[in-house]
Amino acid sequence: MATAKNAFYAQSGGVTAVINASACGVIETARQHPDKIANVYAGRNGIIGALTEDLIDTNQESADNIAALRHTPSGAFGSCRYKLKGLEQSKAEYERLMDIFKAHNIGYFFYNGGGDSADTCHKVSQLSEKMGFPIQAIHVPKTVDNDLPITDVCPGFGSVAKYIATSVREASFDVCSMAKTSTKIFVIEVMGRHAGWIAAAGGLSADGQNDIPIVILFPEVEFNQEKFIAAVKAKVEKYDYCSIVVSEGAHWPDGKFLAEQGTRDAFGHAQLGGAAPVVANMLKEALGYKYHWAVADYLQRAARHIASKTDVEQAYALGKAAVEMAIAGDNAVMPTIVRKSDQPYVWEIGSAKLEDVANVEKMMPKEFITDDGFGITDACRKYLSPLIEGEDYPPYEGGLPKYVTLENEPVEKVLKTDFSL
Amino acid sequence: MATAKNAFYAQSGGVTAVINASACGVIETARQHPDKIANVYAGRNGIIGALTEDLIDTNQESADNIAALRHTPSGAFGSCRYKLKGLEQSKAEYERLMDIFKAHNIGYFFYNGGGDSADTCHKVSQLSEKMGFPIQAIHVPKTVDNDLPITDVCPGFGSVAKYIATSVREASFDVCSMAKTSTKIFVIEVMGRHAGWIAAAGGLSADGQNDIPIVILFPEVEFNQEKFIAAVKAKVEKYDYCSIVVSEGAHWPDGKFLAEQGTRDAFGHAQLGGAAPVVANMLKEALGYKYHWAVADYLQRAARHIASKTDVEQAYALGKAAVEMAIAGDNAVMPTIVRKSDQPYVWEIGSAKLEDVANVEKMMPKEFITDDGFGITDACRKYLSPLIEGEDYPPYEGGLPKYVTLENEPVEKVLKTDFSL
Repeated sequence: MATAKNAFYAQSGGVTAVINASACGVIETARQHPDKIANVYAGRNGIIGALTEDLIDTNQESADNIAALRHTPSGAFGSCRYKLKGLEQSKAEYERLMDIFKAHNIGYFFYNGGGDSADTCHKVSQLSEKMGFPIQAIHVPKTVDNDLPITDVCPGFGSVAKYIATSVREASFDVCSMAKTSTKIFVIEVMGRHAGWIAAAGGLSADGQNDIPIVILFPEVEFNQEKFIAAVKAKVEKYDYCSIVVSEGAHWPDGKFLAEQGTRDAFGHAQLGGAAPVVANMLKEALGYKYHWAVADYLQRAARHIASKTDVEQAYALGKAAVEMAIAGDNAVMPTIVRKSDQPYVWEIGSAKLEDVANVEKMMPKEFITDDGFGITDACRKYLSPLIEGEDYPPYEGGLPKYVTLENEPVEKVLKTDFSL
Repeated sequence: MATAKNAFYAQSGGVTAVINASACGVIETARQHPDKIANVYAGRNGIIGALTEDLIDTNQESADNIAALRHTPSGAFGSCRYKLKGLEQSKAEYERLMDIFKAHNIGYFFYNGGGDSADTCHKVSQLSEKMGFPIQAIHVPKTVDNDLPITDVCPGFGSVAKYIATSVREASFDVCSMAKTSTKIFVIEVMGRHAGWIAAAGGLSADGQNDIPIVILFPEVEFNQEKFIAAVKAKVEKYDYCSIVVSEGAHWPDGKFLAEQGTRDAFGHAQLGGAAPVVANMLKEALGYKYHWAVADYLQRAARHIASKTDVEQAYALGKAAVEMAIAGDNAVMPTIVRKSDQPYVWEIGSAKLEDVANVEKMMPKEFITDDGFGITDACRKYLSPLIEGEDYPPYEGGLPKYVTLENEPVEKVLKTDFSL
């Protein structure tokens, strides 16, 4: 045990239904190697916890509580939106991190986040080489936006995709029932400001058995009002109803988001609404159809009750792999999902260098969007389908999912010095 | 079989996650009594199907398809929003119904709907007495609004309640994770224009194990902006975040809905937004908190993937009971749920006269809302909790719920005469 060091683990950026499954993978695996990792200290509210010496002692958590992380959405230790800049610009912060790591005998840095976090993790990994501080930094991928490169998929995305595909199918059945005398148009707004992966998942709600009319508005396709209205009209004329999935990132040719379309409250304040009401109203104006609209917002990324089993397993496996890579001596890497086959979906864990991950955004390939710009292709379906496969229900108590809230006991401070963020 | 008559069954008004479970109960039970009920003819798009002689031959559906109705949301035969007036005002329509019933040997009328539909069903039940046409009319209760009198609960409500309570819990966990540096306020808008039953269900997300700060805006409580802002501020000061559940029916003292609060698009058109963005923006203005908001809309009532097992069982049992009451010779009645005990929840089927049901709205009792107007009391919790109990997952295929779309073969027309609605 003399050579054992402590590990730091933090959750970063928007949380997901399965980021805690990665935390579970990290902590359970670390606990299997007490000769290498004495304790996992979690940052309270992400990297801020490290900077302010506000660490959580995960050894105080019972094995049951840690196991329950696997089925608990959100970030159990708190997350944050806080981006460290380069080593030169943010020198004080990196020096502070080193002070904290030294004070708490931290030799491993696990950072669980998306693209910005991968960049931070990459910079921490350079502390060893550039500043002579011995640390191994491993990034654990996470983002519902599914926009990290190299990995087949980002944990969090598969569960959002399953939620959106299920919700669009259910709401479409509903509208179909109502269309004769009432609602003909259902609009749902989904996340994805830059990439249309989540919007694409709405397309999965239709398949060979479910002939559902769907029009999708992707951020990758410049909005064309005339074509859009014509597409919806054609669907309604054929099916008597239409479901529309609009990405929050859908925008006009000049880059302005649909959501920003001059919506004003009584005082003239902008941006009350979202893209969904704008689109619904546009159709009402043009075609006179009665509409309903929904904005899924946090519901979609928090919906652990309908998580993808594939996603949960991958999230856990990536957390586990991160620890195993650290123990094997790796630094500046991110475990990835490597797709070996589509159907059956076979995947294994791979590894990517952080220098190849940081600041690279994976967009939807053009061949995933139909020529008219409003649907998904078979290639897209082949990619997406395996990611939503399998159910992984949380336990229920009194009719509600039983999620864990950890004790989150603080690690005793050593430095006891303030640090202003 | 000589004395067997056909039954007419129609779905009315807004559909739910479990109205098809009632249809399943009606049809499966009718099939067990071929000596009494030869066939169940479903109205295509509700009562409109009867008026236009557009009937669906349910005998053509396989037993498997009918069984699958139990786990399929929406209205499998189509619903409609179409209200028949009194016998005098709508004489032509009632005469048309009698012509259709006679032409198709229909002796039983099952109407599956809410308050307005109960009124229509009541009028049909009077055809026997007032117009000499032999028909037995039985109402099968259904409404997510939970506002029918006498019955302990209305099928459809329990599943929406479970969806909202689960979603609020999940989103609250999410916001809690983000609150340190980002979102502090999550607002979700729920259905219920007149009664706050669904909004109340949001209160279930917090319990002894889950200390979640929630502020609810009920339609039963006149909106007081100052008190509301103070209530949210107090929660955020204590918890660092707050979840707000706002009923679409929340309104100012003058009756104006929050959702109508002067929201205008660039062209000056009113009512783009919903109550959620109005409330979120109001808090931002007053307190400066970063917010997120969601509008659940159809997602909540179509969410069969997280239906309450109790709700599904009751929906089925009420459909079954309706047929049994018809066979027993009843007319002008509605089967009800009678609560025998809270915990464990024990219920049985009762019966109410339609004259006591029609045009009576059951509002939330005052003692279900806390004195401050923003929460639910223990009495409310005692009432609501059993209704969301149990899970009843649909089957899945390829990661998505497998719902049935019926063949819906038409019954051959006999009258072949037009009828204008």
